[in-house]
Amino acid sequence: MLIVMHHHATDEQIQAVKNTVEAMGLRAEPIPGSMRTAIGVLDNQGYVEDSTIRELPGVREVIHVSKPYKLVSRDFHPQATIVDVGGVRIGDGEAAVVIGGPCSIETEEQMHAAARQVKAAGGQILRGGAFKPRTGPHSFQGLGVAGLKILRDAGQAAGLPVVTEVMRIEQLDVICEHADMLQIGARNMQNFDLLKEVGKLDHPVLLKRGMSATIEEFLAAAEYILAEGNNRVVLCERGIRTFEKATRNTLDLSVVPLIRTMSHLPIIVDPSHATGKRPLVPVMARAALVAGAHGLMVEMHPEPEKALCDGAQSLDPEGFGKLMKDLGRIEKFLAELDN
Amino acid sequence: MLIVMHHHATDEQIQAVKNTVEAMGLRAEPIPGSMRTAIGVLDNQGYVEDSTIRELPGVREVIHVSKPYKLVSRDFHPQATIVDVGGVRIGDGEAAVVIGGPCSIETEEQMHAAARQVKAAGGQILRGGAFKPRTGPHSFQGLGVAGLKILRDAGQAAGLPVVTEVMRIEQLDVICEHADMLQIGARNMQNFDLLKEVGKLDHPVLLKRGMSATIEEFLAAAEYILAEGNNRVVLCERGIRTFEKATRNTLDLSVVPLIRTMSHLPIIVDPSHATGKRPLVPVMARAALVAGAHGLMVEMHPEPEKALCDGAQSLDPEGFGKLMKDLGRIEKFLAELDN
Amino acid sequence: MLIVMHHHATDEQIQAVKNTVEAMGLRAEPIPGSMRTAIGVLDNQGYVEDSTIRELPGVREVIHVSKPYKLVSRDFHPQATIVDVGGVRIGDGEAAVVIGGPCSIETEEQMHAAARQVKAAGGQILRGGAFKPRTGPHSFQGLGVAGLKILRDAGQAAGLPVVTEVMRIEQLDVICEHADMLQIGARNMQNFDLLKEVGKLDHPVLLKRGMSATIEEFLAAAEYILAEGNNRVVLCERGIRTFEKATRNTLDLSVVPLIRTMSHLPIIVDPSHATGKRPLVPVMARAALVAGAHGLMVEMHPEPEKALCDGAQSLDPEGFGKLMKDLGRIEKFLAELDN
Amino acid sequence: MLIVMHHHATDEQIQAVKNTVEAMGLRAEPIPGSMRTAIGVLDNQGYVEDSTIRELPGVREVIHVSKPYKLVSRDFHPQATIVDVGGVRIGDGEAAVVIGGPCSIETEEQMHAAARQVKAAGGQILRGGAFKPRTGPHSFQGLGVAGLKILRDAGQAAGLPVVTEVMRIEQLDVICEHADMLQIGARNMQNFDLLKEVGKLDHPVLLKRGMSATIEEFLAAAEYILAEGNNRVVLCERGIRTFEKATRNTLDLSVVPLIRTMSHLPIIVDPSHATGKRPLVPVMARAALVAGAHGLMVEMHPEPEKALCDGAQSLDPEGFGKLMKDLGRIEKFLAELDN
Repeated sequence: MLIVMHHHATDEQIQAVKNTVEAMGLRAEPIPGSMRTAIGVLDNQGYVEDSTIRELPGVREVIHVSKPYKLVSRDFHPQATIVDVGGVRIGDGEAAVVIGGPCSIETEEQMHAAARQVKAAGGQILRGGAFKPRTGPHSFQGLGVAGLKILRDAGQAAGLPVVTEVMRIEQLDVICEHADMLQIGARNMQNFDLLKEVGKLDHPVLLKRGMSATIEEFLAAAEYILAEGNNRVVLCERGIRTFEKATRNTLDLSVVPLIRTMSHLPIIVDPSHATGKRPLVPVMARAALVAGAHGLMVEMHPEPEKALCDGAQSLDPEGFGKLMKDLGRIEKFLAELDN
Repeated sequence: MLIVMHHHATDEQIQAVKNTVEAMGLRAEPIPGSMRTAIGVLDNQGYVEDSTIRELPGVREVIHVSKPYKLVSRDFHPQATIVDVGGVRIGDGEAAVVIGGPCSIETEEQMHAAARQVKAAGGQILRGGAFKPRTGPHSFQGLGVAGLKILRDAGQAAGLPVVTEVMRIEQLDVICEHADMLQIGARNMQNFDLLKEVGKLDHPVLLKRGMSATIEEFLAAAEYILAEGNNRVVLCERGIRTFEKATRNTLDLSVVPLIRTMSHLPIIVDPSHATGKRPLVPVMARAALVAGAHGLMVEMHPEPEKALCDGAQSLDPEGFGKLMKDLGRIEKFLAELDN
Repeated sequence: MLIVMHHHATDEQIQAVKNTVEAMGLRAEPIPGSMRTAIGVLDNQGYVEDSTIRELPGVREVIHVSKPYKLVSRDFHPQATIVDVGGVRIGDGEAAVVIGGPCSIETEEQMHAAARQVKAAGGQILRGGAFKPRTGPHSFQGLGVAGLKILRDAGQAAGLPVVTEVMRIEQLDVICEHADMLQIGARNMQNFDLLKEVGKLDHPVLLKRGMSATIEEFLAAAEYILAEGNNRVVLCERGIRTFEKATRNTLDLSVVPLIRTMSHLPIIVDPSHATGKRPLVPVMARAALVAGAHGLMVEMHPEPEKALCDGAQSLDPEGFGKLMKDLGRIEKFLAELDN
Repeated sequence: MLIVMHHHATDEQIQAVKNTVEAMGLRAEPIPGSMRTAIGVLDNQGYVEDSTIRELPGVREVIHVSKPYKLVSRDFHPQATIVDVGGVRIGDGEAAVVIGGPCSIETEEQMHAAARQVKAAGGQILRGGAFKPRTGPHSFQGLGVAGLKILRDAGQAAGLPVVTEVMRIEQLDVICEHADMLQIGARNMQNFDLLKEVGKLDHPVLLKRGMSATIEEFLAAAEYILAEGNNRVVLCERGIRTFEKATRNTLDLSVVPLIRTMSHLPIIVDPSHATGKRPLVPVMARAALVAGAHGLMVEMHPEPEKALCDGAQSLDPEGFGKLMKDLGRIEKFLAELDN
């Protein structure tokens, strides 16, 4: 941590800051400059709460060097983490994994069809929402537990592990019983109690980036899960909120290579929620793979025009099949390219 | 809802859209223009799911006129709602209410001192966090239930109702037992299950705007609570996330007069979290009152320099006292001004 | 400047960074920590170009302490600047100044009426655009030089100095001839050549904040003008671009007290462009004054419903007159409050 | 255009809106709904100024369907535009074009070396800035006209057309004399007078997206150039400003496929300014190509560690050479993939 003093800070003020830092059990190292003095803070083992310092007289700014996470950092854990989801491996050195399926679980027919189509196209994990986070209470909220059973049966029939979103702690038992992976949605990325609880489980977790979460906050959210003992976390970039409204969100693809250097956790991309527009999904899915994503989450519906939710961003089976073929060829090409 | 067709959309495509809308039980009214055709959708009772329409051939854009909320809207409920918190009334026509106190409950001494100081200065409600949402898991997480007891005792001793944040559903019982008002924090504004549960209670709720929530989403979140039967909701603007980092958040004060016309619910402002800087708090608190806020939430700590959390944005008792005096005079002045 | 090294940076890498800094004529002071080393850079007289350093092996981050401006900073120039515009004084200790008038100069009748109404209500400066920056080329672009003459005549007839926007360097001569103050619009805040040219003049300048300009960039833009010798600059907050679309922009009112401490230049607020909605203008104008603005820029049109531009955010003469009365009372009240 | 009335709007208010629209020479078509009435506006030939309507009593909202551009739209001009820059063709069906070179022109040696290296690696156009837009006035501002001569000579010696940024209208003559393509930087995207002047020339123009420009504003800026007669415009996505600060900007790659459907103009990507970090440039360059970019603008410096500007985001000759090889292979692969 670096404490920057005001231009006109007095020696007494500088000494007072030094004393405060030392009272916290840390070391303070003044660095006098030509225009102002800065004070380096040393010996801290992690993020230092700065509020007691920021308000001291003469202090202009406090600059943090340490981050609010450590377990998820590649700096401290250089080896890549591979997350196994019902036999499907996600992470460095593994083939890119595609999670496909509809936004919402609607009927048995729909999910069984979706599962068969995902499997036939080469998808490895089936998705489907039983509990849906909707902006307003008057929209379809999902089938709940009945939906979970449909999802599990459809996955088993097709031979695919399944992932579904969890929205409240009381649902964890029943969801763990029916699903192979737990999804934490963007709106719950900082639902810290939910993070702590999934951290106590042994289930793999798909953690979506919050709509306006910085990379630092995203990794700190994952840190909550790892801190409780569960390191089976897959990160998912799904677009951030910006001023641009021509797409549903703004897909922040640079985050993929960046997080690959910052963290050992796998990172996948959801081009469906990021763009909100079906014609953009395949092209951004390709780009995500090229940017280094360990996998993709793609919305696919047997009949998108009848979807109860997010139909406009869902591929149909034909589009999904075409995309899967393309992704396979792209991956093979990338392996050659980097050889 | 308005469906805008492409420039080159064919008559068949226009007819197909019309048929789809009518199959949803709604009325479709084509409006041919010189450059393109638009189709008005009528007879809907609320927000219409547009995914089945957006993907039809020839459709360029779907524009919503209805909103994902209705119960919170002043359009449908013109009379202002007054929320009573332990005898303190918040809303149109009432004196502005100041909620004061520390970010976190730390010790008995601290909370009792804070309560006395808030009361002495003229504050009406005491705040204090027992369960704290922190970016990373390695920061102080709050005293939990032990903190709740301290808060309640401090409030009772000083004669102040108390408000505290709830982060998980299982905490609702114990928090309701100890607190007069439940706070839903910015990070949980779209924790819809939590919203539904507090909607089933009779306790007043302080709902903070999410960091990147639009006004529409903010009101739709409140709709979740009202839809379950609890209309004792106070909205709170606490700054939004923007590119500007000189302040902790960007205080969006225009939201105050805007929400006053859009909704019948009271709206208060939290200048402490919005600015993150103590010297800005009093001036923005004054401005908020002038903008029409029904109240304020202000962080105050008996000894900010020793605060475990948010010390840099907390007023000290003297600063709080000065602010309260100023607010009283401002309110009196505003009453004269608008007479 | 502080250079933060990677956790695993070698002694050789640290030494290489030290050497590079010293080769730039600066002093390097390593600060070894328990987890990583940081290197303080001293003796720089201003902002240091960091690109040669950021790419050295082992460097994780470069943190700047110096700012890209100095002349505008209160740190180096504590005394407040008062800007005189045709006898009207703007700045600390002066009465708040209201600049009123229409978005565009349309006709002689309109401008003379506007000027009389602004004057009658107590406004001190007349505004009106002769050259208009419009999003698309097919919208009304302003009357040009003919408009300037109308503006000057209207101002003279009413006894008001006038301000108008300059969009290109070749217009400077003719605008200086007709106007008392030059406005640099938000879209040109980083049109650095234009800034340099107005910096060579003796005319006062109204510099509007760019739509997505940080405070640092805003002050650095003003620095361009002062660096050329013209320190008669008034800053103007007019809302920033965020995800929220319920208002035209998001009025960032916290910037007012913040800039008052950071810079000696006066700062005024434009609630018309910030909100884009007439009913919000008076209330946000009041709030701006309470937040410490040295003045306001308010759009007023004799007949807003016939305005060629921005009618929806313009007050009518009656609304403007009411606002002026309120502002006068608020100012008097504020003077008492802070006594 | 659609005018949405308030829930309680009276018949008189609806009639008054209808009258106003008709007075503008347009047709008004009321669409009564179950909850409120909307009024469709027809027969307009383009964007309608809405300020006279928005403020009428009973009007809740005005929704635009027309856009502030037409000439750039693929809706009205389906055939793709190919822009020829000194014999290099950019656009649909052409090989992706790479513009390489340093941020700033520094010396003859540097530019000649850069030109040779760009050429040797297979780059088609040379870039280099003679006039530099810098945040503050105390940073290096470029070599000016002396730099232009160096750039032209280096380009000629290597057999490469050259592009350089223009910042003021008076520079146009001398820049046209020395450069094959004019660049309008992000900060000048809405410098409308500059756009109009380059629109009167016959030189090709590289128009960079403004830092917070929507796609609509970006295309409307291009419309300014086309409206004056110059349709040789290449668009360039270079990242937008968001809350995320881990990268210099947020690369909005979805804009590439989106603009390809919205406009007939070519679109290229600048991964150097978008990310601001050298290690991210090659991977995002690859992703941009896969997303459909017609070309790339990549910063390359013979010795990045000595660059006067943007060294940290510049590739060295080796990295640039490697990238060019990869891009060639990617393009060949994409051609096969889509066959």
